Amino acid sequence: MAKELRIVPIAHIRTDFPTKFGIPRQAGIAGALQGTVVFEPEFRVDDALRGIEGFSHLWLIWGFSENAGSSWTPTVRPPRLGGNVRMGVFATRSPFRPNGLGLSCVRLLSLKKEPMLGTTLLVAGADLMDGTPIYDIKPYIPYADSIPDAAGGFAPDEGRVLAVDFPEQLLNAVPEEKRAGLLSVLAHDPRPRYQDDPERIYGMAFAGLDIRFRVEDTNLIITDVINQNQGA
Amino acid sequence: MAKELRIVPIAHIRTDFPTKFGIPRQAGIAGALQGTVVFEPEFRVDDALRGIEGFSHLWLIWGFSENAGSSWTPTVRPPRLGGNVRMGVFATRSPFRPNGLGLSCVRLLSLKKEPMLGTTLLVAGADLMDGTPIYDIKPYIPYADSIPDAAGGFAPDEGRVLAVDFPEQLLNAVPEEKRAGLLSVLAHDPRPRYQDDPERIYGMAFAGLDIRFRVEDTNLIITDVINQNQGA
Repeated sequence: MAKELRIVPIAHIRTDFPTKFGIPRQAGIAGALQGTVVFEPEFRVDDALRGIEGFSHLWLIWGFSENAGSSWTPTVRPPRLGGNVRMGVFATRSPFRPNGLGLSCVRLLSLKKEPMLGTTLLVAGADLMDGTPIYDIKPYIPYADSIPDAAGGFAPDEGRVLAVDFPEQLLNAVPEEKRAGLLSVLAHDPRPRYQDDPERIYGMAFAGLDIRFRVEDTNLIITDVINQNQGA
Repeated sequence: MAKELRIVPIAHIRTDFPTKFGIPRQAGIAGALQGTVVFEPEFRVDDALRGIEGFSHLWLIWGFSENAGSSWTPTVRPPRLGGNVRMGVFATRSPFRPNGLGLSCVRLLSLKKEPMLGTTLLVAGADLMDGTPIYDIKPYIPYADSIPDAAGGFAPDEGRVLAVDFPEQLLNAVPEEKRAGLLSVLAHDPRPRYQDDPERIYGMAFAGLDIRFRVEDTNLIITDVINQNQGA
């Protein structure tokens, strides 16, 4: 009965997150974050996308590549619950799960023909690490997939939102088109778990920058933005 | 880059569809259809379900087991478009796709402890064939997953609905708790593609019964219900 299935990446995604630190816990949280789906050579076929532009949203089924091959445990500790309460893995979207598959709904912004890469998909709301393998892309079908009054268990809403204090001269170091996405990520508290050391400085790698911040009560204060290519 | 991932079934589902004929094309179409998720022995761990009852809906990531291993083609012909128009496979939910993964949102009705099977999940709206392997179960998180105003491309709604003429003495042969699901499947035109031969009799295997019907204009007329265990 338990026959294994072999699946291969059809694409990978390019995002501004070189590490998993700061990646939103759900695709919906940071709708302004952009990513680019680049198809693998075998699947770089324009015909396979025919009609996709009629859909505003897509499902991505992807792989938690960082923990591929690790064993599973029945319970996990969702960051949402403070990191101290254990929930069943199938009651969470935790990466630490059998088969390591992720599911994200993203907005389709545009299709772009690129000389070396074929047609790529520019999407928004991508809560994925740069280079994440994509195993399937499906259209979001609202009459089947949208259930506004579903009960959301321990994650009924986006959770608490922080006020972000981003000094203007530091914000200017962030490319303009990436600011909205970054601010949204910061507002949703990118720390791995709620920690309460207001002195601690965190560093988040984002779009070639090291975003330094600390969190005091419900305020996130940017302390520095360092261009990683140029050093500090 | 294109490294394969091996995934194993964590469960399989029991439904009333022994063949794929008649299976709704989307989970949302036949919300009354019930199925039971039975975990594989290795994943038969109650702790893995802790907190799941707080969610009204679940995602199932499953395998189109019937066409596993078959090669993919860039375009498919969605039944929804009459079966004559080709669309890109990634713009459809067609089973004939790279990696053969399916995605369905189902309603969680109850958890049940069964002596030989451990805890099983009774779900509604399952558009899956009996025995389909399940690779992942995730909670439906409405703030991230529900996008009521998403544009649905060529499948903006449930499509046309047929009037079902089911003579009472034939309906009595169907177990009472399965009637609503069956009627809903029939109303959504279970024929593989729109065909227009009003004389043709179709047979659909459902819950141990052979449901015989024909379709004339927008009417589906039940001609017989045969108990397959007892013969005609």
